[in-house]
Amino acid sequence: MKGKRISKKDRQVQLVEKLKNDPFLTDEELMQMFGVSIQTIRLDRLELGIPELRERIKSVAESNYSKVRTIGGREIVGELIDIKLGESGISVLQTDESMAFEKTKHIRGHNIFAQAESLAIAVIDEDTAITAVANTKYYIPVKAGEKLVAKAEVVRHRGDRHFVHVFIYSGQEQVFRGKFILMPLN
Amino acid sequence: MKGKRISKKDRQVQLVEKLKNDPFLTDEELMQMFGVSIQTIRLDRLELGIPELRERIKSVAESNYSKVRTIGGREIVGELIDIKLGESGISVLQTDESMAFEKTKHIRGHNIFAQAESLAIAVIDEDTAITAVANTKYYIPVKAGEKLVAKAEVVRHRGDRHFVHVFIYSGQEQVFRGKFILMPLN
Repeated sequence: MKGKRISKKDRQVQLVEKLKNDPFLTDEELMQMFGVSIQTIRLDRLELGIPELRERIKSVAESNYSKVRTIGGREIVGELIDIKLGESGISVLQTDESMAFEKTKHIRGHNIFAQAESLAIAVIDEDTAITAVANTKYYIPVKAGEKLVAKAEVVRHRGDRHFVHVFIYSGQEQVFRGKFILMPLN
Repeated sequence: MKGKRISKKDRQVQLVEKLKNDPFLTDEELMQMFGVSIQTIRLDRLELGIPELRERIKSVAESNYSKVRTIGGREIVGELIDIKLGESGISVLQTDESMAFEKTKHIRGHNIFAQAESLAIAVIDEDTAITAVANTKYYIPVKAGEKLVAKAEVVRHRGDRHFVHVFIYSGQEQVFRGKFILMPLN
């Protein structure tokens, strides 16, 4: 029924369900879904023992790092929030001023490259992997503070070469794409 | 006369001359040129008040940084040893283990990318520059400890786009090439 608020109990049941389907919903997104204030969402999380988004990302990332073969988890630039070895992966990078040019406060290209390249390497199902080719496009300049979500997909293999595409988004906008060819070290 | 050593005085005159033509000759290279021991070269430099290579590179780099318009000198990855604004530039990057993958000790692609990209940006004769496209090839894996020499050349302009090619060498071997398209920020 339009306009009618659901009970606190029902809301909390639904909130748990929604976060089970998408653990990376922000408090702002949940607030809009339920038509309540952000304080209400925070109290709900507190009562239900659900940590804030940043902690949820970290905890998911920890369990993903153990699946990666090519590099150490800490060597991945950003938090690894999803990984299907040999197939695909997703990472989240919270940008800040240390990654930006002093003059323009725009994130330096090599930091975005680092998120993309390390994710491309992480998804490869090999003991080692090194970049042979990287063709990259930067569509929209990224400002310090933006949260970047990178999605990598292994698109094909030829001999010992792995072809990986990485797309990076800030909110709904695509800011970068990289086409990588990776090889194991012999 | 073959086999006959030149006098110390003549050698020191020639050494000054050679370093004037190429300030980045190593003590090892000078040693071979004059057929003397490395200690002799070091003593010659000491007597002539010529600092060691690392210091010579730093001092040349300092004076080059003031010519760069797009970014701060410290933002260039490596030492900027030559710059012709709007035309070309050369930088030297001493790699170390902090830039390498833990498992393989090979330099991570994004660090090589960072040397190339920051040099490409530095040579542009604009107030600001940001990477729009970067097509890169990594020919030979670089090991921690190798010294990388990057050479950038502005190859053409189209509208407000600057096309810059960067080649990176380790010793005589080309390890990387990047083709960059850069634009000023509007």
